[in-house]
Amino acid sequence: MDDDTSDKPRLTLLGLGAMGSALARAWLAAGHPLTVWNRGPGRAAPLAAEGAAVARTAAGAVAASGLVVVCLLDHASVDEALAGADLRGKDLVDLTTGTPAQARARAAWAEDRGARFLDGGVMAVPPMIGVPGSGGYVLYSGSRAVFDAHHDVLAVPAGTRYVGQDPGSAALHDVALLSAMTGMFAGVSHSFALIRGGGLPPGEFAPLLVGWLTAMAPYAYRVADQLESGDYAKGVTSSLAMMVQGNATLLRTAEEQGVSAELLTPFTALMERRLAGGHGDEGTAGVIDLLTR
Amino acid sequence: MDDDTSDKPRLTLLGLGAMGSALARAWLAAGHPLTVWNRGPGRAAPLAAEGAAVARTAAGAVAASGLVVVCLLDHASVDEALAGADLRGKDLVDLTTGTPAQARARAAWAEDRGARFLDGGVMAVPPMIGVPGSGGYVLYSGSRAVFDAHHDVLAVPAGTRYVGQDPGSAALHDVALLSAMTGMFAGVSHSFALIRGGGLPPGEFAPLLVGWLTAMAPYAYRVADQLESGDYAKGVTSSLAMMVQGNATLLRTAEEQGVSAELLTPFTALMERRLAGGHGDEGTAGVIDLLTR
Repeated sequence: MDDDTSDKPRLTLLGLGAMGSALARAWLAAGHPLTVWNRGPGRAAPLAAEGAAVARTAAGAVAASGLVVVCLLDHASVDEALAGADLRGKDLVDLTTGTPAQARARAAWAEDRGARFLDGGVMAVPPMIGVPGSGGYVLYSGSRAVFDAHHDVLAVPAGTRYVGQDPGSAALHDVALLSAMTGMFAGVSHSFALIRGGGLPPGEFAPLLVGWLTAMAPYAYRVADQLESGDYAKGVTSSLAMMVQGNATLLRTAEEQGVSAELLTPFTALMERRLAGGHGDEGTAGVIDLLTR
Repeated sequence: MDDDTSDKPRLTLLGLGAMGSALARAWLAAGHPLTVWNRGPGRAAPLAAEGAAVARTAAGAVAASGLVVVCLLDHASVDEALAGADLRGKDLVDLTTGTPAQARARAAWAEDRGARFLDGGVMAVPPMIGVPGSGGYVLYSGSRAVFDAHHDVLAVPAGTRYVGQDPGSAALHDVALLSAMTGMFAGVSHSFALIRGGGLPPGEFAPLLVGWLTAMAPYAYRVADQLESGDYAKGVTSSLAMMVQGNATLLRTAEEQGVSAELLTPFTALMERRLAGGHGDEGTAGVIDLLTR
């Protein structure tokens, strides 16, 4: 299968973890000639059977294509893999998870080596990759020219969303979304802990939980509206004063059920601080100010 | 409009806050004769104009109907309102937010006074009340006979879900859902704080945030499956070891952006504790054990 008679452009992928392997399969399935490299050899063999060219070195993989996609464990792994590669004239797309500062540093590093740079943050789990309609997408930032030149290739495994010239922007929004999810998972953990002491079986409770979180997620639109207008009481149906009173019931119930409230108390404490500042008619947007001061 | 020529049964509602007023309007709109009472008089006047009978005392309101629905500020407000009421032969439905223990105490209190008791937890905000298809519903627990006898009336303002004879069960599940939402809102707050320092405007970021949280909420199904099977590694696509590594990026990014990580660290610390216990191949279900020990 690996030949250059395909009318699709060749690309190189470094890193064949769960996400990298899923990306590789999506490009192969779409008919793209693909050169892969992974530090350990075991991951490449099944992809070779599906048509990938397997490079013995990262430098060799980089040499094979003009477009080089990197999906490694962390920033240090990228340094190590690309140490001996000739990046002149390459378009480097880095999907490795990192901080905004790491993405900016990588962009400068790539420019020093003669490459154009685009950073990406993958908003999907591997089973969503290459599945049209899965809702998975990749946030991109950095070189608009690289994004535009390779858009059709980049759009194969998942949706794309360009969020700005600042190479750190994709990582910032990636981390912001993952952080919100982390809060949600903390809440989910507390919730299951509560019902363990006498509630519905977890499998019967889960549909209620997923339905409720899905119904309440659009609360973020109201917060955004409050932040943009500067009027933190805008559109409030449940005021901070009411929520703080409700929080007391949440904390008492945790105590009744023998569940530690440690996952709830940092937020309830910030809400109380904001309320004490005389903002009882607002929603929760003021807590954001407390986090950033 | 208030007469007894309606073929719908009369009911009484105590408490006309935002939620109580929304409930009252739903019952009036459906043609139910309704007697209302509120501690302050201002809230009742608009409902009188819509056809409600306004009682001057809570005891008088209770006397007017066999079915008495209470939606007050807290447990103490219910004590105060019902102190002088004759509850013999009444069916009392308490939608006031409280803990499971408060609901059980109220059930015993009502039984002592000759009433049958059903507790309810409203899983909706007032704008969802009386709106078919809004997704709002009320969790009920306690007397199955009361639930069955009045089901058609109770189903007017919102969907219904009976969760058991234990009068504390509705409150337990109500609080569990609200606690999960609190975690999600904490995550949303942290997320907006992060992007304040150079990200998309909140209004452009919000659709990404709502979409991501909605896509990730079904994670709760996997946690439920792990809890029920006892196999916390079941179906894991993102292991605790991988998540703990990802958390380091979340915390570093918060530091880069000048945002306090206090809303994330209790959960990341529990994940690290569980990982240190040798559970790196699991998901996050093991954190639930740490909360309940």
